[in-house]
Amino acid sequence: MTTYVLLIACADRKGLIHKITGILYDHDLNIISNGEFVEKETNSFFMRTEFSGEIETSSLTDSLRAVLPETAYIRLIEQKKKDIIVMATRESHCLGDLLMRHYSQSLPVVIRAVISNYDRLRELTEKFHVDYHYVSHEGCSRQEHEARVSAIVDRYAPDYLVLAKYMRILSPVLIRQFENRIINIHHSFLPAFIGAKPYERAYARGVKIIGATAHFVNDNLDEGPIIAQGVIPVSHSHSARDMAQAGKDVEKTVLAKALKLVAEDRVFVSGNKTIIFD
Amino acid sequence: MTTYVLLIACADRKGLIHKITGILYDHDLNIISNGEFVEKETNSFFMRTEFSGEIETSSLTDSLRAVLPETAYIRLIEQKKKDIIVMATRESHCLGDLLMRHYSQSLPVVIRAVISNYDRLRELTEKFHVDYHYVSHEGCSRQEHEARVSAIVDRYAPDYLVLAKYMRILSPVLIRQFENRIINIHHSFLPAFIGAKPYERAYARGVKIIGATAHFVNDNLDEGPIIAQGVIPVSHSHSARDMAQAGKDVEKTVLAKALKLVAEDRVFVSGNKTIIFD
Amino acid sequence: MTTYVLLIACADRKGLIHKITGILYDHDLNIISNGEFVEKETNSFFMRTEFSGEIETSSLTDSLRAVLPETAYIRLIEQKKKDIIVMATRESHCLGDLLMRHYSQSLPVVIRAVISNYDRLRELTEKFHVDYHYVSHEGCSRQEHEARVSAIVDRYAPDYLVLAKYMRILSPVLIRQFENRIINIHHSFLPAFIGAKPYERAYARGVKIIGATAHFVNDNLDEGPIIAQGVIPVSHSHSARDMAQAGKDVEKTVLAKALKLVAEDRVFVSGNKTIIFD
Amino acid sequence: MTTYVLLIACADRKGLIHKITGILYDHDLNIISNGEFVEKETNSFFMRTEFSGEIETSSLTDSLRAVLPETAYIRLIEQKKKDIIVMATRESHCLGDLLMRHYSQSLPVVIRAVISNYDRLRELTEKFHVDYHYVSHEGCSRQEHEARVSAIVDRYAPDYLVLAKYMRILSPVLIRQFENRIINIHHSFLPAFIGAKPYERAYARGVKIIGATAHFVNDNLDEGPIIAQGVIPVSHSHSARDMAQAGKDVEKTVLAKALKLVAEDRVFVSGNKTIIFD
Repeated sequence: MTTYVLLIACADRKGLIHKITGILYDHDLNIISNGEFVEKETNSFFMRTEFSGEIETSSLTDSLRAVLPETAYIRLIEQKKKDIIVMATRESHCLGDLLMRHYSQSLPVVIRAVISNYDRLRELTEKFHVDYHYVSHEGCSRQEHEARVSAIVDRYAPDYLVLAKYMRILSPVLIRQFENRIINIHHSFLPAFIGAKPYERAYARGVKIIGATAHFVNDNLDEGPIIAQGVIPVSHSHSARDMAQAGKDVEKTVLAKALKLVAEDRVFVSGNKTIIFD
Repeated sequence: MTTYVLLIACADRKGLIHKITGILYDHDLNIISNGEFVEKETNSFFMRTEFSGEIETSSLTDSLRAVLPETAYIRLIEQKKKDIIVMATRESHCLGDLLMRHYSQSLPVVIRAVISNYDRLRELTEKFHVDYHYVSHEGCSRQEHEARVSAIVDRYAPDYLVLAKYMRILSPVLIRQFENRIINIHHSFLPAFIGAKPYERAYARGVKIIGATAHFVNDNLDEGPIIAQGVIPVSHSHSARDMAQAGKDVEKTVLAKALKLVAEDRVFVSGNKTIIFD
Repeated sequence: MTTYVLLIACADRKGLIHKITGILYDHDLNIISNGEFVEKETNSFFMRTEFSGEIETSSLTDSLRAVLPETAYIRLIEQKKKDIIVMATRESHCLGDLLMRHYSQSLPVVIRAVISNYDRLRELTEKFHVDYHYVSHEGCSRQEHEARVSAIVDRYAPDYLVLAKYMRILSPVLIRQFENRIINIHHSFLPAFIGAKPYERAYARGVKIIGATAHFVNDNLDEGPIIAQGVIPVSHSHSARDMAQAGKDVEKTVLAKALKLVAEDRVFVSGNKTIIFD
Repeated sequence: MTTYVLLIACADRKGLIHKITGILYDHDLNIISNGEFVEKETNSFFMRTEFSGEIETSSLTDSLRAVLPETAYIRLIEQKKKDIIVMATRESHCLGDLLMRHYSQSLPVVIRAVISNYDRLRELTEKFHVDYHYVSHEGCSRQEHEARVSAIVDRYAPDYLVLAKYMRILSPVLIRQFENRIINIHHSFLPAFIGAKPYERAYARGVKIIGATAHFVNDNLDEGPIIAQGVIPVSHSHSARDMAQAGKDVEKTVLAKALKLVAEDRVFVSGNKTIIFD
């Protein structure tokens, strides 16, 4: 039997759950888990249902559309691994962790390719028989560089782009193409230390806890919807370099956690926030 | 408008959510939040719904009963503060924290009385104009002592008993009278260090993290359903006394957290486990 | 036998520990614990030694001065409770927690008085037989208000001022008078959400973890040296109000932790950072 | 210039730090960091000093021996990477994480070989050009199996054995040969759930936090000195399988943390506890 995830978002009103579950009941589907949330501020209703059964997708969607507000967001997703492209620069810890999870099949994703502006992570990537594309940013404009990256991305038609310490800013064009489908790991506890060199700034500020933040990428650097965050304690004895070293474990763990949530279709984006059914 | 919590537990089968929410819809009730869980192991369905509206309680319950399995557990609770009795021995940190929360009304509970086998916490308790009952355990049998305690408890008819570092074992009689309504805080990360002197034993074992566990009390010491747990790191430089000191903050925080969950009717007991909708 | 803490800070050079411990050895003192740290960036040496014995303070200090760089910071402190004044506005959780710890003697501090710009916390404070001074800020200039506060503070000559959710900004005069002796609790994970309404802004940003920061107060709002920080996870289901409620436990715990470190003379300030021997 | 770590453990008495640092001063060594601890219970003194300089090892050790109690433990270690052998069974997450850290040189260890009682992790190991030895336990006695393992271990003469989810019990012989040099990761928060199937038991007990423990191996299963522990929250919605899955990240992080501490010579064993200078 196939497993599906049904995602619904619409203006809240009475009776939504009753109507939606009624249609699932009529189709004789077996609900595995169910979550709802009403965001008061926007009067929005969110629902995620995981169920198994045999369905004709369009028929189910049509039935749902008939009982939901006209502008409702309805998505019915057959559960299978998501295709991702990982983008990285020079650091190996996040990429390496994702490759390991890809290898051990502990995340519902398949890494189709790695793209980097350096050639440094090729050996590591190819150990796992994953395509590696080295697209240097040197000697070309930002626009040219991204055009080349984009061409490679398009070839794979991935579900998500995962920026695993990719130290370049993406253009609005690519961001729009992959709206809410680009996941970045930022090495600070956002919104603290937005931008460059967060560990140096954390050290300079004398903080006692550092962190990492996985978020969707939008047009404003490090300001997209946050998916997951993690922290670890530090002390005066940590140099900026020690913090960066210690932070690596949080970065990779938080990125993997966020990717799992996204790949399992547990994350809605509402404005600049995420609603997460975990 | 009044707020209610509806708790339902029954054998799982298709269509339950649809039917239950249908009845709430028919009664024109406004669902504030909703949670469901199916425990696969026991094929049990659990649902907690918070809603507001004007209802006739018995009519709603009857309607629900008509669509649910015969043996379904159905509880409809008008949301208001719960009456509790706090039992303590000599340590003031948990009791003091609860008295402060009672005073600032930050928990949905009213402390009706404190019962202790010492007179030591009287001054603290009476600062907050809460009745204090000193029932010494000296010169009387365990049975006699508990009979006296029980008589006082009965006078207040509390919703819950909260053992805030009460260092005596309750009899099966009292435990049965308050089934799943006695909350204890144990000063270890259960099931590690069940029983007496957990900090001494944590020290002797050389653990690097210590914790506290809030649980319902049943006939087996420290083995009732766990509601909440918390931890803090320690090191070789902590003596057993340092651990006990450091542990106090976790104990009081975990106890307050558990009490909040229980008093907001968010906790189901299923066998020896809790299902918590938070 | 008396217990002392010796604090030394000076430019680093070889042989410092040897010379310092030599003098302690000559005076036949019993070292209880010892910590050193060299801050590479500034080439500064920091040492905290806790010892017991009978000494003539000035003689020991003179001996130390003879072997240390001329500009060395040397402080020899007989261990006893520190006098503090707590300043608060309307919220009771931090003040209440400090009063409880004062009552149970679980922190090495004595609360000599509470000063507030509202009369609201009087009843709570006076339960614990602590002086309460209500100094309204209404109908008087900022300068006048602080002059009145200052006059009261001076009367008690406290070791430290503790701002337990005191919602007013202190003047540079008072800050200079109590340099590195004013401890504030800020209800965010600094440097995120400096300034007003951090929970509202945390909610608006959609963060998944919130925190609290205890720091020394200097002339720049929320930018003084950080002493301690703590965090708790939140989710999309937390409103700003829920975050504020959940944050209270972190605020009070972090403030108490910072106060303990400071009152036990474990904290050095170096530039805008703290060096902590715990 | 070479970096050394000096480890000293002996009965405590006055003047030890003075004398030890005096000898380092006489040899004109540059102390990088320094830590001392006195275990009251056993009246034992522990000191770890990291310094750089040019020394003749035996001369320095002799000088130290002259001022220390006769039975003092003195170890002077030139800082370089430690050779380790990783032993594993079928799970790849801990081994994979160690291989990644070996590859990125983020831990001061070199994995000389992997030994497993299955052939399953060969492909992964050999990606990293690390020797893989498959020693099946089938068709041979426990004694024979370990003899074969032991022969391979001896060939590499490693500094440490790391049990990365090695699901077999070692014999006292091997344990004695590598006293306090075998590091195991146990998938529970010890001493909770000693022995087999900790996640199943954690699930059955309904705990709200699970953990992992890295410890030295001694003759009693899961009872050796604890080096590091870590935890993550779980809820009723985690099956035993979900717990095992979620626990993997803690297991690998805690194991890597413990290995780092050990490989940097930061860990003393005192009785059944560790004293850690981090």
